[in-house]
Amino acid sequence: MGIITDNFMLKNETARLLYHRYAEKMPIIDYHCHISPQDIYEDRKFDNITQIWLGGDHYKWRLIRSDGISEDEITGDADPFVKFKHFAAMLPKAIGNPMYHWTHLELKRYFDYDGILDEDTAAEVYALCNKRLQQPDMTVRNLIKKSNVKMIGTTDDPIDSLEWHIKLREDQSFPVAVLPSFRPDKAVNIEKAGFAEYIIKLSAAAGIEINGIEDVKKALSNRLDFFCELGCRATDHGLDYVVYSPAADAAVEKIFQTVMNGGTVPQEEADRYKTAIMLHLGKEYAKRGIVMQLHYGAQRNTNANMFDRLGPDTGFDCISTKNCGENIVGFLDALERQNALPKTILYSLNPQDNELLDTIIGCFQGTETAGKLQHGAAWWFNDTRSGMEAQVKSLANLSLLGNFIGMLTDSRSFLSYTRHEYFRRILCSLIGEWVEEGEYPNDEKRLGKMIEDLCFHNAKRYFGI
Amino acid sequence: MGIITDNFMLKNETARLLYHRYAEKMPIIDYHCHISPQDIYEDRKFDNITQIWLGGDHYKWRLIRSDGISEDEITGDADPFVKFKHFAAMLPKAIGNPMYHWTHLELKRYFDYDGILDEDTAAEVYALCNKRLQQPDMTVRNLIKKSNVKMIGTTDDPIDSLEWHIKLREDQSFPVAVLPSFRPDKAVNIEKAGFAEYIIKLSAAAGIEINGIEDVKKALSNRLDFFCELGCRATDHGLDYVVYSPAADAAVEKIFQTVMNGGTVPQEEADRYKTAIMLHLGKEYAKRGIVMQLHYGAQRNTNANMFDRLGPDTGFDCISTKNCGENIVGFLDALERQNALPKTILYSLNPQDNELLDTIIGCFQGTETAGKLQHGAAWWFNDTRSGMEAQVKSLANLSLLGNFIGMLTDSRSFLSYTRHEYFRRILCSLIGEWVEEGEYPNDEKRLGKMIEDLCFHNAKRYFGI
Amino acid sequence: MGIITDNFMLKNETARLLYHRYAEKMPIIDYHCHISPQDIYEDRKFDNITQIWLGGDHYKWRLIRSDGISEDEITGDADPFVKFKHFAAMLPKAIGNPMYHWTHLELKRYFDYDGILDEDTAAEVYALCNKRLQQPDMTVRNLIKKSNVKMIGTTDDPIDSLEWHIKLREDQSFPVAVLPSFRPDKAVNIEKAGFAEYIIKLSAAAGIEINGIEDVKKALSNRLDFFCELGCRATDHGLDYVVYSPAADAAVEKIFQTVMNGGTVPQEEADRYKTAIMLHLGKEYAKRGIVMQLHYGAQRNTNANMFDRLGPDTGFDCISTKNCGENIVGFLDALERQNALPKTILYSLNPQDNELLDTIIGCFQGTETAGKLQHGAAWWFNDTRSGMEAQVKSLANLSLLGNFIGMLTDSRSFLSYTRHEYFRRILCSLIGEWVEEGEYPNDEKRLGKMIEDLCFHNAKRYFGI
Repeated sequence: MGIITDNFMLKNETARLLYHRYAEKMPIIDYHCHISPQDIYEDRKFDNITQIWLGGDHYKWRLIRSDGISEDEITGDADPFVKFKHFAAMLPKAIGNPMYHWTHLELKRYFDYDGILDEDTAAEVYALCNKRLQQPDMTVRNLIKKSNVKMIGTTDDPIDSLEWHIKLREDQSFPVAVLPSFRPDKAVNIEKAGFAEYIIKLSAAAGIEINGIEDVKKALSNRLDFFCELGCRATDHGLDYVVYSPAADAAVEKIFQTVMNGGTVPQEEADRYKTAIMLHLGKEYAKRGIVMQLHYGAQRNTNANMFDRLGPDTGFDCISTKNCGENIVGFLDALERQNALPKTILYSLNPQDNELLDTIIGCFQGTETAGKLQHGAAWWFNDTRSGMEAQVKSLANLSLLGNFIGMLTDSRSFLSYTRHEYFRRILCSLIGEWVEEGEYPNDEKRLGKMIEDLCFHNAKRYFGI
Repeated sequence: MGIITDNFMLKNETARLLYHRYAEKMPIIDYHCHISPQDIYEDRKFDNITQIWLGGDHYKWRLIRSDGISEDEITGDADPFVKFKHFAAMLPKAIGNPMYHWTHLELKRYFDYDGILDEDTAAEVYALCNKRLQQPDMTVRNLIKKSNVKMIGTTDDPIDSLEWHIKLREDQSFPVAVLPSFRPDKAVNIEKAGFAEYIIKLSAAAGIEINGIEDVKKALSNRLDFFCELGCRATDHGLDYVVYSPAADAAVEKIFQTVMNGGTVPQEEADRYKTAIMLHLGKEYAKRGIVMQLHYGAQRNTNANMFDRLGPDTGFDCISTKNCGENIVGFLDALERQNALPKTILYSLNPQDNELLDTIIGCFQGTETAGKLQHGAAWWFNDTRSGMEAQVKSLANLSLLGNFIGMLTDSRSFLSYTRHEYFRRILCSLIGEWVEEGEYPNDEKRLGKMIEDLCFHNAKRYFGI
Repeated sequence: MGIITDNFMLKNETARLLYHRYAEKMPIIDYHCHISPQDIYEDRKFDNITQIWLGGDHYKWRLIRSDGISEDEITGDADPFVKFKHFAAMLPKAIGNPMYHWTHLELKRYFDYDGILDEDTAAEVYALCNKRLQQPDMTVRNLIKKSNVKMIGTTDDPIDSLEWHIKLREDQSFPVAVLPSFRPDKAVNIEKAGFAEYIIKLSAAAGIEINGIEDVKKALSNRLDFFCELGCRATDHGLDYVVYSPAADAAVEKIFQTVMNGGTVPQEEADRYKTAIMLHLGKEYAKRGIVMQLHYGAQRNTNANMFDRLGPDTGFDCISTKNCGENIVGFLDALERQNALPKTILYSLNPQDNELLDTIIGCFQGTETAGKLQHGAAWWFNDTRSGMEAQVKSLANLSLLGNFIGMLTDSRSFLSYTRHEYFRRILCSLIGEWVEEGEYPNDEKRLGKMIEDLCFHNAKRYFGI
């Protein structure tokens, strides 16, 4: 018997009632993920479970590396079953790790496998999954539909043609809204290699000649309009840390020109450019009523050897504990002073920032919607039972949990909608515990509605879907 | 049926026994609050529940703002019932927030209301509370007496005439000690607008001509003597962060003169002046045997628009995560080296500082009293079940919980003595859990005495009341 | 009846089964401690319980100081029973403190005392312990054997002659491996008083003339060889914070010469020297396959008065919250780029660093062994139930708990092997809770093996014993 029973993670009676009567039935608004719209349009099929699980999942790679396995047999050319077997053999050591739960949830929900994956069952599970993946209901579109997803927010570069979004919009046969999200990191990160080349591409995509920073702003606004035509409801920024270094226009222009002419600038000058662009974008988002997401707090590409071998986003990032609370406040206040603060979601990779963020959002609420400023769901390394509980408890302590827009997958995989299930079970347990301990009235009608709001309606309303 | 049952927050048998036999009966020493001594002397009555609850409580304002309500209907001119109804409609979303508990505790203890406040019951509760507020036992003095309060420590500016404290001392009819606390922030914050004007007022209040920093010190010492004559047992400092930048007397004098002559100084110079004044005051406190409270870790007035509209202390502050552990150590050590470290209570708004503070206090204890250095009760944003549990657990792990001086209201309201009840219930639950899990002996005599000490006797002894 | 029952700290059925069938029986690899090899060789006896408990234990001193006792009666010349009685009288106030548990565990395991130590029982316990200490089975060697210890890693200066390790190796009558650990802090801390004198001693110990930093490196490598001949499996660095300030060889040489010639250097220059030495040592450790331990995050000797009176390591240290995550990454990456990163264990005194460290280790794993990079067991101030739970949970969330090398005593006492028992009970409770809540399969065979690995086999394998 496996661990994924009906009442998995539902630690009390109230949790079981709330989950099975309310949470379980709600559709999914997956407003932030990294899946490929092309895969959706083309309704991709997968060759084998190694491809779908180990083809791009740096969470899994990190754990296998922690087990002393050589890179060749993780991301290299080794036989798919060899790779799978290392994963399976590692898994039992991942006691207390969400990977243990995610894996068994996916095996149960998508492959009807009810056992435990380990070294002994690896061959059996490998065969079972690969057979299952050949069945017609296991294509990308069918996986999405089966997961009761109503909306998907992808992550897209401003210069992207959005060709697959256009095709998906025209395809009446697929009922799920697949909307682009605007992620202009490459236009912001002036200190990174390739910035000047990117600006040239941005110019081409927007059809706007770029001679200075005002042109960059125009080009970004132009692309943002294009994204909005295709239903864009949110933008996203991946920041090492939140910057706020306001400077005079002329100074910022000089920084921009230096880099465009092949020079480099010190970090404090890069931060001035970034601040100018971020303030511009914030205003543009507010004008269009779309949501600004700020993800910060990562130290990326820490291992130079492995970066040279595998590139970015391959499992060599860690938490940054750099303190940028004052910058966050400065940035939000600067927009607010211009009455141009958009709906904003703050996410930090440092779990010690929970209370900081929950007190910051309380300073910048507005009348556009209940919960205009949000502290986003526990992110990346914090996407664990204790990480989610900490985020929810901090939000409840310091703000209005009832207005929270809830979970997202942040995933590159079509099997990870089970993370919504995981979150919902944990949420119901926490609320159930409060109710059973007498800290909140045991009023099913109110609780059921709150659960439905937290699982679906709040996000639907917030993103205007 | 409401949530405030006899055993609210008492999660185990031992907790129930300890609370009902010991904690519940202990008087209150409310050694740190912000209530008005004039209101006490004049035995103020309240017009309606909106006035008493929503007239000045920025905790409530923040939550209502988080629900998307416009400022006019929170702090503006809207009808009192409109404001109250927004509060009531928001409240159910505050699941997991201490406001949900505080509100129902106050409704039960002071208004005998046993139901749940929400949008549906708002009118009923409004009428009931307003009727009740007209009864003679609901004046300020009666609320205090009914709450079993023995001592109140107000918060007062050094230039305050303490006129109401004088009158209260002369009034034999009111048995509660209402003592001033010395809060010289305006004489410390040299970088804030109005500093020079304040120094002139300080000069007048003390009757001492101020020509230099030595005169400021003299004037403050003079006012401190006056406060002590009126029973002052504690002082308080509200600091963005703890400073420790020692500098030569001449350098500090120059900084002071610059500001007095209308100039401004950079932050590092301001910190030098502050350090000089703080060291002086610390010594003066030690000489008089009174308690120094250091509250730090807030970013204040983050929202410039709202500051312009409403001024300070209106719900636009957040946590500061600025690291000042080394300064705290430097400051305490500098006093200790002069054998002039007073009894000191450290409070940080950043809950991540719990362990830092608990290890710092362990370095500077003394023989004046058990627990000379204290880590103060969970403060402001941390005044929640989990915040209080974290502070108590950290203190227990790293110091002697048995010497803790316990809870304070830090409140502007005469209804918030229920926060002592809230703390006591949570404390009894935590201790009860340790006992029932076999981590501490189940010895009622010892446990009962410890609870009485933590609720009352330790504070009484520590403040010398 | 005391608190140390068979099921002390075992909060669920699974925990009880796992502890009694597996954990309890495993031997101890105490890979990091501060006990005296001379005491082991000479099989020291103790005069009285005050000597063994209060002779050098700054954890106990801090707690007694927090109770307002004068230093004379803690570390001074007072009668041993007076000191003991202060400890006993303080103890009941230490509710929730691990000292309460450690004390009663030691009384039960080594002295067969089953009661509660407090002011009333102090005389009885004092007499009982002192009588027991005279019995032949209470010598150092017998205490170690009775505790089922298989290996002890002491902490030794590079200039140490290791005379007692040599004698112990030659003594066939003592079956426990007592191995030196290399702790070259004095050769690293160029900013500390006595550095130049130390370098002269190092030169003498190594028989290498030291004229520049390259000679320092050679001398350290020479001493490391000597340590390895005597079975050294690990090194240790006590750092205020981890440094990473790479600089050109010539610049570092100049810094070294300045200090050797009696000058002083600013902190940033000291950090450059330290970085150069640390990089050299890291490479040398990797070459020899030994483990590098980095302990950081302490502010030491905070109280100058008490430092003057008692010197270092007397209970006046606190947590440092200085942020050095980027330095840790820079340092590990610099070694990795040279394929010279040794097995490494990271320990921070700041419990807020748990998640930071667990994500860092995931970036630098290798194929030398499963779990090459480790986040060390909760250290010093964090060596509490909640501190250990937090470390284990964070490690489980973000890495592979199954590869963790587990507990160490870090102790100066021969009675503190009970800390392994304390850790094992807490570990079994946590794992048992996960199992009973359905988060991990209830498979005794697998769980039993995992517990045995975490208690013994992982450390044995990791250190190559």
